[in-house]
Amino acid sequence: MIELTVALGERSYPILIGAGLLGTPGLLTPYVPGGRALIVSNEVVAPLHLASLQRSLEGVQCDTLILPDGEHTKTLQTLNLIFDRLLESRHERSTTLIALGGGVTGDLTGFAAASYQRGVNFIQVPTTLLAQVDSSVGGKTGVNHPLGKNMIGAFYQPKIVLADIDVLKTLPERELRAGLAEVIKYGLLGNAEFFAWLEMHIDALLAGDSELQAQAVKICCEEKARIVAADEREGGKRALLNLGHTFGHAIESAMGYGVWLHGEAVATGMVMAADLSHRLGWISAEEASRARALIERAGLPVVPPEQISSGQFMTLMAVDKKVQGGKIRFVLLRQIGDAVVEADVPASLLQQTLCAGAALCR
Amino acid sequence: MIELTVALGERSYPILIGAGLLGTPGLLTPYVPGGRALIVSNEVVAPLHLASLQRSLEGVQCDTLILPDGEHTKTLQTLNLIFDRLLESRHERSTTLIALGGGVTGDLTGFAAASYQRGVNFIQVPTTLLAQVDSSVGGKTGVNHPLGKNMIGAFYQPKIVLADIDVLKTLPERELRAGLAEVIKYGLLGNAEFFAWLEMHIDALLAGDSELQAQAVKICCEEKARIVAADEREGGKRALLNLGHTFGHAIESAMGYGVWLHGEAVATGMVMAADLSHRLGWISAEEASRARALIERAGLPVVPPEQISSGQFMTLMAVDKKVQGGKIRFVLLRQIGDAVVEADVPASLLQQTLCAGAALCR
Repeated sequence: MIELTVALGERSYPILIGAGLLGTPGLLTPYVPGGRALIVSNEVVAPLHLASLQRSLEGVQCDTLILPDGEHTKTLQTLNLIFDRLLESRHERSTTLIALGGGVTGDLTGFAAASYQRGVNFIQVPTTLLAQVDSSVGGKTGVNHPLGKNMIGAFYQPKIVLADIDVLKTLPERELRAGLAEVIKYGLLGNAEFFAWLEMHIDALLAGDSELQAQAVKICCEEKARIVAADEREGGKRALLNLGHTFGHAIESAMGYGVWLHGEAVATGMVMAADLSHRLGWISAEEASRARALIERAGLPVVPPEQISSGQFMTLMAVDKKVQGGKIRFVLLRQIGDAVVEADVPASLLQQTLCAGAALCR
Repeated sequence: MIELTVALGERSYPILIGAGLLGTPGLLTPYVPGGRALIVSNEVVAPLHLASLQRSLEGVQCDTLILPDGEHTKTLQTLNLIFDRLLESRHERSTTLIALGGGVTGDLTGFAAASYQRGVNFIQVPTTLLAQVDSSVGGKTGVNHPLGKNMIGAFYQPKIVLADIDVLKTLPERELRAGLAEVIKYGLLGNAEFFAWLEMHIDALLAGDSELQAQAVKICCEEKARIVAADEREGGKRALLNLGHTFGHAIESAMGYGVWLHGEAVATGMVMAADLSHRLGWISAEEASRARALIERAGLPVVPPEQISSGQFMTLMAVDKKVQGGKIRFVLLRQIGDAVVEADVPASLLQQTLCAGAALCR
């Protein structure tokens, strides 16, 4: 078992990474001080892993709430189902919410934990690669609004994150690929050596090599923990974690949440960011190709959907949380392993990037 | 103008108290760093004070959202109207939300500010006595759930609170009386001298003496600022501010939110807390009578509604946020000016308090 720490003063917490952690008795119980918990999961994950988690929580009085699955459920309405359940079952301020699932489950449950009685104990048990390497670490929680993704939420840190590598064995291949998008992101934005390592091991990671997967999860969590510790509330550096997300959120929103997986949209968004970085003269054509090639080898889409016009992209990107003074702030690449935030992008270059993938430019 | 500070480290903020502050140009503009704001008010307050506030915010690009009035509007659904408006008008993370209204407006707007894009700038301009002395100070924000009051929310501090005593002139008498309930609360829970001052000046305060009102608002804000600075997230001492609220929330919930004003329910709740404190042998019959008499002189109800059975009281109080380990924790009086939290109340004494006011005990 690997143990990392997200260093945030009195809000610091451990991330445990390893095989078989989910069913290990006693690992989580010290983090449920009130002796009572509500496990929130979804209808896909619960049949696979809920019983095992419950068994490991011996001595804790556990209620469970099984939500429908999918990004389209990440709404205030679903959030309210968690509050309904907590109040109907009379959970007190000393209760603990445990998220068992992917990013959607973690984001919803985390925001519920931040808001229920103005804040209760929270534990993340991520069951997708994407959640293990990204969404479960760092305290971003929230729900979507029809006009924008993750527009409503809170920064709220868990008490512990438990990443069981074994659960990746039950993950559908499409979800595994989507998770690899965020893995590749960490290489692109801040760790060229890790990017090269991924070029070497991408096939084995896709094939399900547990040791390499654990290694990748560890490196991504280290990268994220370092960035979050330096900038918990996204005043500066943390924005780099949004590499590919400005384009990606627009794709998710235009297609309807859940049609493209978040990781798929981010994958294409990163290719677009690399393309734009090249058009700005920042990275070479070869570096842009390396980025695109690795994303393609991971089985991820590298071209945005044809039906999104560049005008629609612009409209959707204008509500991004990183917009400042009306300017869209893009995360772009100075080189592989070195990302920066840039607000002054010439409209003509941006237009070229938006059109480059599409069959026609509308 | 009186200026106080709520001392919370980097989250410290000023409270300005005085006559005519609302229309004073430039007072608030330094607290709107992004140059853009959404003023949230309600249909009763906006016609009286919105134009004046807008004039004073020269140079700020202000949108406005006018909500319906009343405690029954303090819901997740109304909260979503604020998010709709913010996103439709493309407010960025650098925007400022300004609450112009009473406690409901402040609680809703504050929670929206805490959650929009995971937190934006927030200003409180309370226009009721209750909001000026209590709800606008200290960072408690949130909405109600059908199963409990203020069950969903956040601790989120404003950047400044502007309490204009002149607005109290336009306040309906019933609202003024309701505000005096919270004023009396500060005397009862921690300041016997202030309680005696109130016994002397209650008639003048009701008659609208601005200087005495400013004095009362100042003392209450000082008391609250002191308690909040010592215990921002209600780990201990802050719970004392809930004197009268455990009974009071049950009354509000049983009657339907808004039928009794919050201050009216708290007034009766304080009489019940004093009664229970006397039955426990803590305060004398004379002290309990003094508490009841002052509340009665303020024109506030001192007996709970007959239709609430003691069983219903118990059920509703069991979901109070202060419940711990299944035990209801009451804020009770050791003497006037000295409140404590007590979880071990004999059921028989509690039953007597619940029945004392009712015509019959059911």
